[in-house]
Amino acid sequence: MATTGHTVKAFDTDLGQIRGLVSEMGGRAEAAITDSIGALAQLDLETAARIVEDDRRLDELEAEVERHVIRLIALRQPMADDLREVVAALKISGVVERIGDYAKNIAKRVPLLADMHSSEPLAILPAMARAVSDLVRAALDAYAARDPAAAIEVCRADRQVDDFYNTLFRSLLTYMMENPTAITPSAHLLFIAKNLERIGDHATNVAEMVYFAATGEQLTERPRGQDPLAVMGA
Amino acid sequence: MATTGHTVKAFDTDLGQIRGLVSEMGGRAEAAITDSIGALAQLDLETAARIVEDDRRLDELEAEVERHVIRLIALRQPMADDLREVVAALKISGVVERIGDYAKNIAKRVPLLADMHSSEPLAILPAMARAVSDLVRAALDAYAARDPAAAIEVCRADRQVDDFYNTLFRSLLTYMMENPTAITPSAHLLFIAKNLERIGDHATNVAEMVYFAATGEQLTERPRGQDPLAVMGA
Repeated sequence: MATTGHTVKAFDTDLGQIRGLVSEMGGRAEAAITDSIGALAQLDLETAARIVEDDRRLDELEAEVERHVIRLIALRQPMADDLREVVAALKISGVVERIGDYAKNIAKRVPLLADMHSSEPLAILPAMARAVSDLVRAALDAYAARDPAAAIEVCRADRQVDDFYNTLFRSLLTYMMENPTAITPSAHLLFIAKNLERIGDHATNVAEMVYFAATGEQLTERPRGQDPLAVMGA
Repeated sequence: MATTGHTVKAFDTDLGQIRGLVSEMGGRAEAAITDSIGALAQLDLETAARIVEDDRRLDELEAEVERHVIRLIALRQPMADDLREVVAALKISGVVERIGDYAKNIAKRVPLLADMHSSEPLAILPAMARAVSDLVRAALDAYAARDPAAAIEVCRADRQVDDFYNTLFRSLLTYMMENPTAITPSAHLLFIAKNLERIGDHATNVAEMVYFAATGEQLTERPRGQDPLAVMGA
């Protein structure tokens, strides 16, 4: 494609700005995950409320990415690889916004758990949250570095999150059977574990989009862990 | 913008094709919701397996929409309203694909519930599923008709789905307390109800995108029902 140096430079500047916004979104989503589980462990209602409030900024950033993408396409009319990368930025910002929604949902449950006594399954959550936020960071790092090999690694690492989820699901159900009076808080913990598991899936989605943007090929046969549902009935 | 009649016609044909693909996705997602709850009510493992299998087609259609969108942008270089509509089609196809994922997740739980005895809360699910699939159809109809008023109506109607969810959440928890041996199947029903509630939220997202594509304005102050989490602790 014949373009002047001037046009190429303008495109790179615009794209760099969009990529910067997506990275900012990633950093915020990652912090929201860690902070929401921290707020849960400490039953810190103030932090929980702040996370819910801060999520608006993620929504605004996603809208900002969309505006930039539309403007960039209209002004620079990118082709082939460039266009694929612009579309990937748009899609990844959408996924990161949803990751933020899951973290916000965890934070919203903190006040509902305020009179909860510590339960054994609760002890596993911080480790699972750490694995999940590491996964989100790795997916966004792969995006920043345009690194398809790192993207494959993220899909592999999602197994660990699925393992955490299966362990938590089983132990929460056992805990509910043994402590019927703790069924309501345990149900919230079940949803919190599910939210973390879904965030792991979304990090995998980001990695798949990074792979596609970098290579032009779908990472269809994703190396998955054991399907969480496959062991649920056990 | 000065364009020849020829260019306009080619753009309209391409966009019509993309809109047709999105509508096909919507019809499939809607059927998957109804069929998955039907399979659950009948404990029909064959239908459940078919739904899981059919979901691949939704993934393919989403990839097809993306290819068409990229090609259309590259070839026709649409501006302003046209570009906004093309981006909306891309985003809506992503949301519809996720709606299909939730229906698939319901279908995947059917075998895990095969030895479940009918429980009272189970009786509410089909009515909730009907409300949810009506909502998805209404959102896609609003898209097909480019009708912002219909889009607002979808956001309003999502309240009913939230009410269903709150009722189910409460009655499932009570049921679990009274029947500790039924905790595992009830936990699956809890996730199924949550999936339906999330599908309702996604239909609302589609409606918001339809509104934005038609008017250029965000439907930010969405008329929401009672926040499901707000009543969960009750």
